[in-house]
Amino acid sequence: MKHNFGAGPCILPQEVFKEAAEAVINFNGLSILEVSHRHKDFVAVMEEAMDLVKKALGIPAGYSVAFIQGGATLGFTIAALNMQRTNCKAGYINTGTWASGAIKEAKKVGIDVIEIASSADRNFTYIPKDFKIPEDIDYLHYTSNNTIYGTQFKEVPKGKIPLVCDMSSDIFSKEINVADYDFIYAGAQKNLGPAGATLYIVKDEILDKSSATFLPTYLDLKQHIDKESMLNTPPVFSVYVSMLNLRYLLAKGGVLAQQKLNESKAALLYQEIDSNPSFQGAVAKEDRSLMNITFLLSDPKRSEQFDSMWKEAGIVGLPGHRSVGGYRASMYNALPIESVQILVDVMNEFNRIG
Amino acid sequence: MKHNFGAGPCILPQEVFKEAAEAVINFNGLSILEVSHRHKDFVAVMEEAMDLVKKALGIPAGYSVAFIQGGATLGFTIAALNMQRTNCKAGYINTGTWASGAIKEAKKVGIDVIEIASSADRNFTYIPKDFKIPEDIDYLHYTSNNTIYGTQFKEVPKGKIPLVCDMSSDIFSKEINVADYDFIYAGAQKNLGPAGATLYIVKDEILDKSSATFLPTYLDLKQHIDKESMLNTPPVFSVYVSMLNLRYLLAKGGVLAQQKLNESKAALLYQEIDSNPSFQGAVAKEDRSLMNITFLLSDPKRSEQFDSMWKEAGIVGLPGHRSVGGYRASMYNALPIESVQILVDVMNEFNRIG
Repeated sequence: MKHNFGAGPCILPQEVFKEAAEAVINFNGLSILEVSHRHKDFVAVMEEAMDLVKKALGIPAGYSVAFIQGGATLGFTIAALNMQRTNCKAGYINTGTWASGAIKEAKKVGIDVIEIASSADRNFTYIPKDFKIPEDIDYLHYTSNNTIYGTQFKEVPKGKIPLVCDMSSDIFSKEINVADYDFIYAGAQKNLGPAGATLYIVKDEILDKSSATFLPTYLDLKQHIDKESMLNTPPVFSVYVSMLNLRYLLAKGGVLAQQKLNESKAALLYQEIDSNPSFQGAVAKEDRSLMNITFLLSDPKRSEQFDSMWKEAGIVGLPGHRSVGGYRASMYNALPIESVQILVDVMNEFNRIG
Repeated sequence: MKHNFGAGPCILPQEVFKEAAEAVINFNGLSILEVSHRHKDFVAVMEEAMDLVKKALGIPAGYSVAFIQGGATLGFTIAALNMQRTNCKAGYINTGTWASGAIKEAKKVGIDVIEIASSADRNFTYIPKDFKIPEDIDYLHYTSNNTIYGTQFKEVPKGKIPLVCDMSSDIFSKEINVADYDFIYAGAQKNLGPAGATLYIVKDEILDKSSATFLPTYLDLKQHIDKESMLNTPPVFSVYVSMLNLRYLLAKGGVLAQQKLNESKAALLYQEIDSNPSFQGAVAKEDRSLMNITFLLSDPKRSEQFDSMWKEAGIVGLPGHRSVGGYRASMYNALPIESVQILVDVMNEFNRIG
């Protein structure tokens, strides 16, 4: 039994793995891997996946959903191109690696990027607050959860201008009010499904209003939405497994029930970090992520000892991102609270024998 | 037992499905769907997949391989952007839907497209020949096999300028001389693996020479190659299954052995089409595809009868593309010759009782 604290691609429910494996052998008489995306059986899968996204997040009328390839990295460009208006000027909140990536790609397509707030001054260990949102920008972009650093926005930075959010690492982990947003995008490989699909949720009224002079068909969101995510061959298996996972999420009570479980899991580990003198949290307490919990050893010289203990307990994926070091316990939806307890037990024991 | 003549996503070897299903449950103790792409076990998969591509196609030194997302549709844009030089002018051979798509996307990024040959005059039922390749263009683009129409280039249209080829539907089906090309791209979902990955093979010297003013990171081939297909999270499962399928291809004798089998399968069906008065081929004989065999009923009024007969025999995926009608037997690598014989038997019987 392994306890998978990996940051993504990451754990999904065992039931989903089981059903996915069965479909690789037999999906209505064929393998899901050899079914045409135009076959009615897969068209039904795609429709159900998009419907379940809407249901799980309570998406109001006037919004559309699409699955596209390319991850959030291509999403940076798609967001910038589709939200660009005649001002050609956008506000970005810089909370670390992925937010910086979004800024870089917006600049690459010619957008005048105003970095309206940044936590670079303290190595992205907090979420900037009390910033002013200008009113002459085309849109405001932020990254709701910072997978690498372990910070998360607790409030939506809503101004009077269209709001764009990269929710790759916390979508489906807690309730959101989709009406706050004009454009949401998220790589599937955390709480949605396997790598290879990226989810887009957009307000219909933003479509087809881009002022970009350069807009290849694959980067034009309206084309994907008009074709119901079948502009070209979609990532069939990733969408299928995402659908299975959304069915599972809803059967278990939906996003709110999952949020409560995630809060319990995070409370258990943060309590240990705060009460165990051998460890310390890596980021500002009020900005701590429920998904990616980063922490450090009080005595870094004991890292070899700690590493051998958690590995011995069957834990995988605990090292921090190579750019920041330390430890990171990613606790996505499918991680059982029992796995968190195992980690807490190891931390306790590590302190006792220290 | 079903006989899958679908045009893609399409049949892969049963052994590959079996191994893929096992890995969804257990890949070194985790599901392949929850393994980090940075884990050494998956890094090894990616390296092996790229090595097997090189081995299977006999790729010479000086070429690199990458797996990217987005299908050939995004490939149209990636090809145009990365091959664009100061002339900003390219030659395209228009052999139908996908070639036309490539032309459209090149124009969208500002390239002056010279359609140097086209078979639009006879609804793309042949491959243009005897065209002149200008010398002042940045590159020449063609589509080696036309999945929808059932035509295929038998000779490489090689001039003195860099050659770009969309090989989505015939790569790995026959030997090619990679040295003839500067840039090859191919959606995985025919003879390589499941939908969700796209293969790029490029001459290293073409990299980093684009004159495009607009080049988002995800569309910059050099970035993918420098990061060994790990610029961002790759489509893990699609790459894994592609690797399994390439292992299988090589174990069975490689591309040349497969080519001979594909030639036998195609000969069997074309012989039936040409000798059975109830059917006729849809395209010029000398340009017939070995992968997608298109044909028509001599008496279209008998279509309901024919449809019920092949469905009764367990055949799936035989209707022609919705844009051209008729029938299309896609006979990718993994389709057994026994399935072709079943179709031939049905056609024989259909003629006998007609």
